[in-house]
Amino acid sequence: MVKKVAYLGPPGTYSEQAARDWDADAVLLPVDSIPSVALSVVSGDADEGVVPIENSIEGGVTFTLDLLIHDSELYICGETVVTINQCLMAQSRMELDAIKIVMSHPQSLGQCRDFLRESMPNAELIASLSNSAAVQEMMESDVSTAAISSKRAAEIYGAEILMENVEDRPNNETRFVTLSHVDEEPTGSDMTSLCFEYQDDSPGILSQSLREFASRNINLAKIESRPNKKSLGRYVFLVDIEGHRSDSLVAEALEAVRTQVSMMKVLGSYPMSSWRDS
Amino acid sequence: MVKKVAYLGPPGTYSEQAARDWDADAVLLPVDSIPSVALSVVSGDADEGVVPIENSIEGGVTFTLDLLIHDSELYICGETVVTINQCLMAQSRMELDAIKIVMSHPQSLGQCRDFLRESMPNAELIASLSNSAAVQEMMESDVSTAAISSKRAAEIYGAEILMENVEDRPNNETRFVTLSHVDEEPTGSDMTSLCFEYQDDSPGILSQSLREFASRNINLAKIESRPNKKSLGRYVFLVDIEGHRSDSLVAEALEAVRTQVSMMKVLGSYPMSSWRDS
Repeated sequence: MVKKVAYLGPPGTYSEQAARDWDADAVLLPVDSIPSVALSVVSGDADEGVVPIENSIEGGVTFTLDLLIHDSELYICGETVVTINQCLMAQSRMELDAIKIVMSHPQSLGQCRDFLRESMPNAELIASLSNSAAVQEMMESDVSTAAISSKRAAEIYGAEILMENVEDRPNNETRFVTLSHVDEEPTGSDMTSLCFEYQDDSPGILSQSLREFASRNINLAKIESRPNKKSLGRYVFLVDIEGHRSDSLVAEALEAVRTQVSMMKVLGSYPMSSWRDS
Repeated sequence: MVKKVAYLGPPGTYSEQAARDWDADAVLLPVDSIPSVALSVVSGDADEGVVPIENSIEGGVTFTLDLLIHDSELYICGETVVTINQCLMAQSRMELDAIKIVMSHPQSLGQCRDFLRESMPNAELIASLSNSAAVQEMMESDVSTAAISSKRAAEIYGAEILMENVEDRPNNETRFVTLSHVDEEPTGSDMTSLCFEYQDDSPGILSQSLREFASRNINLAKIESRPNKKSLGRYVFLVDIEGHRSDSLVAEALEAVRTQVSMMKVLGSYPMSSWRDS
C-alpha cells in the first residue's frame, strides 16, 4: 500500500519539496495549514505529515512548535532539510525597475529585505498567506506585479523567473519534521525531541535540568523557549538531544528531568539526518 | 528640552501606546520599521526608541531580537508592557455574517484564529504589513471588508468597532523595550539582558554557563535562542537575568560566561518593571 503524506500546500511550496524528499514514492496530500497537516494524520486521511520546524535565518516556526507543545498527540518520526532558493518572478520577462508591487509570504519578504531595498526601493511589498498563493495572485494582477517564491511554484503556475537566489544570506535552509502515530526504533544514531515547563515562574532550575543531560554526556543539540500562553514571562522549553529515548542513559536523564518539571512531553525519537554531519 | 521617542508607526499601533506609556510627555516619532526605530536613535533624530520584544501568546519578536544581536550598538534602558485588545472593525455597523474579507497583520490574524473560524468561517483572510495599515486599506475597500486592529486605530481612521477583545486567549500582553545610547544606573531592582554564542557547534556548554548565574543566586528570567544565520543548527542565546551589570555578583558571572563563549554582548541594565511583581 502506498503511503500518504500530508504537507502545507498548495503545490509548489517548500513543504511539498520536503514531503517529496522525505518519501519519493508517497502520495502527497496538500492541506491548507500546519494544524491541518497534523489533523489529517490524526483522522487517518494521511499516514504521515511533514511540517517546517526551523529555518536557518528566520528561526523556529512558531505554529509548529506550539502545535507540538499544546495540540498534538503525534510523534516526530523523522527530519528532512530543504535548501531554500527564493526566486523573483513575474508574468513575463521585464526590467526590475518596472516592478511596482512584490508579493510574498512575510517570512520570504524578510529573507529578501536587502535585495528588495537595493534593487527596487520604490516597489510596494504585499504580504500573502503562502509563497504559492503569492504567485497565483501575481498571475492575476497587473503586469507590473512580481512575486517571490520557489522555482517549482513558477513552473506550476506558469510564471517567468526574473532572478534566482534573491535571498540576502547564503545557507538558507529549513528543517522539517515528520509527524506520525509512532516514532522510530533505535538505529544507533538518533535524536530525541522533548518539551517541558516548570511549576514556578522562573526558568532558574533550567541549568539543573540541562545538567542531567550534560553529566551523562548526552549532547544538547537545540534549546528553544516558547510562551506558555497563560501569562507573560512564563515559558515552555523545547529541547533536542542526541540519543534515543530507549537508550539507558537518555531514559535515566529524562526520568530525572521529569521530577523537576510540572509538564513534560517526549515528542519522539528518530534517526539523525545527514545534515547534522556537515 | 522635550524628549523624542521613535516607534513603529503608523499612529494607532500598539507600539504607539507603548511609547506613550513609556513617556507621556515625549514627542512621538512614527517610523516605518523596527530597524528604522533603532536608526533614528543612532542618527539623533530621536533620543530613544521603543520596540516590541515578546508577546505572551506569539512569543519573541524575531526582528527585534535579531536587531539586538546583529545590528545594534544601542542599549536597552527600560521595559514597558502593553495589554493587547484586538477589535473587529468595519466602515459601518454590520452583521458578522455579511463580512467577506478580514484584513490584519498575520500575527493578529493568528491571535484571533478560533474567533474567525467560528464567527465567520467563509471570510477570506488577507495579510497586511501592520494593524494600522489593515484599517487604512479596509476603509478604502468594499463595505463587506473588516479589519482587526486596536481601538485607537479605529478612532484615528474613523472605523466602527463591531466587537472588542476578539483574541482567542486572555492575558494577551506585549513587552516592549526602550533603546538608547546608554543604559540605566542601578536602582536596587534591575534586570540585565545579554546575548552570547559558542565557538563549537553544540549548545552543550550552555548548562555550564547558566550555572554561573544559578550558583551566585542570580535569577534567570528568560532564555531564548535565535539562529546565528550562518548555518542551520547554530544558535545565539538571549538571556535576561535579575540584577544590574555593575552588581558585583552579576559582574563576576558575566566575566565567567565571557570566557566560555565566542561572542557576548551585554544589551543593557534597566529598572525592573512592575509587571514582574504580579
